[in-house]
Amino acid sequence: MEIGKVVGNVWATRKDEKLNGQTFLIVKLLATKDTYKDGFLVAADNAGAGNGDLVLISKGSAARESLENKNTPVDATIVGIVDSLEVCDE
Amino acid sequence: MEIGKVVGNVWATRKDEKLNGQTFLIVKLLATKDTYKDGFLVAADNAGAGNGDLVLISKGSAARESLENKNTPVDATIVGIVDSLEVCDE
Amino acid sequence: MEIGKVVGNVWATRKDEKLNGQTFLIVKLLATKDTYKDGFLVAADNAGAGNGDLVLISKGSAARESLENKNTPVDATIVGIVDSLEVCDE
Amino acid sequence: MEIGKVVGNVWATRKDEKLNGQTFLIVKLLATKDTYKDGFLVAADNAGAGNGDLVLISKGSAARESLENKNTPVDATIVGIVDSLEVCDE
Amino acid sequence: MEIGKVVGNVWATRKDEKLNGQTFLIVKLLATKDTYKDGFLVAADNAGAGNGDLVLISKGSAARESLENKNTPVDATIVGIVDSLEVCDE
Repeated sequence: MEIGKVVGNVWATRKDEKLNGQTFLIVKLLATKDTYKDGFLVAADNAGAGNGDLVLISKGSAARESLENKNTPVDATIVGIVDSLEVCDE
Repeated sequence: MEIGKVVGNVWATRKDEKLNGQTFLIVKLLATKDTYKDGFLVAADNAGAGNGDLVLISKGSAARESLENKNTPVDATIVGIVDSLEVCDE
Repeated sequence: MEIGKVVGNVWATRKDEKLNGQTFLIVKLLATKDTYKDGFLVAADNAGAGNGDLVLISKGSAARESLENKNTPVDATIVGIVDSLEVCDE
Repeated sequence: MEIGKVVGNVWATRKDEKLNGQTFLIVKLLATKDTYKDGFLVAADNAGAGNGDLVLISKGSAARESLENKNTPVDATIVGIVDSLEVCDE
Repeated sequence: MEIGKVVGNVWATRKDEKLNGQTFLIVKLLATKDTYKDGFLVAADNAGAGNGDLVLISKGSAARESLENKNTPVDATIVGIVDSLEVCDE
């Protein structure tokens, strides 16, 4: 998994109907404890995250395992809110 | 998922017959709200997208969950048209 | 999916027997309409492609959906020959 | 798979309940025998690893094959502790 | 798939028991016919490869299709030994 920070939202009215009711958040991934990778990704939110939260993200087929409907066409899901993070030896 | 902008089309007459009837669009992925990643990808269109649209793309096995025939050999699908995008803290 | 140009062949006599009878082509992926990404990949050919052809490639589990035996240990398959490609706004 | 060194921990109280009881470790991946790739990833620990251990990591759907509940939304798992590593020809 | 050269071995005594009896080799991936990508990966060997061999590697869920037990938590497998490689147009 990767750790990221929620930095925004995406809205889409015309979409696969299996995505209805799903919140999509924009997340910047951590490169180190204090820096971010370039770019961002969009993740379905299964943990009630909000802007500024540090979150744990699962990608690929694992992302669907966290959703009620496992046929949802989603490839990244927020599966937890990070309380704390301890990184030695960077 | 990732957000991208539709910038073109691909045509292929000789192809896996499970791809018949499927539109393939060329998409440049967003790196930030205003810039693009290098390169492009080809995505099956399941949302009626057109040139210039910002779209939401699912990759990997999730891409097939959005298609009628889940045995279609497709690894990226446009699953929504983005209405708006809000990114703080870049 | 990605678009690539067939630039070569690989031969392997000692291999997983599920790969017998399968042609493997070396493909350079397009970065833009006129340039290539660094490196290359090897794809199973399911479209009768030859050297110099522009091809459409599916990767990951989608690659197996295009093969007769879906248990073939292949992670990239040529699923079509590109006739033409239109890219605006690069 | 990739080889990495355990460099930290992540704690998350609010999370997908299928993740309860699972330890998540922060791992830096090896680039060569003596150097590391940029960034880090979070892996579920299925091998009893601790800080400083060199570990073997499986990613993607393989990560779930190592867990008791194969519906756990995890995309990277520590599947072994590396005893030794021999790399020639770098 | 990708082509790589076997450059070493990994030993792990404490590991997922589904990995018992499996040989793990360290492989550097080809970037061009004569150069290598940075870094290396660890692949299960299903082709009897040895140090210095050029090998064909399948990654992702395809890697498990080549193993006897398809629940082995492995994400990269050597599926063939490359006899020869012909690359034009680099």
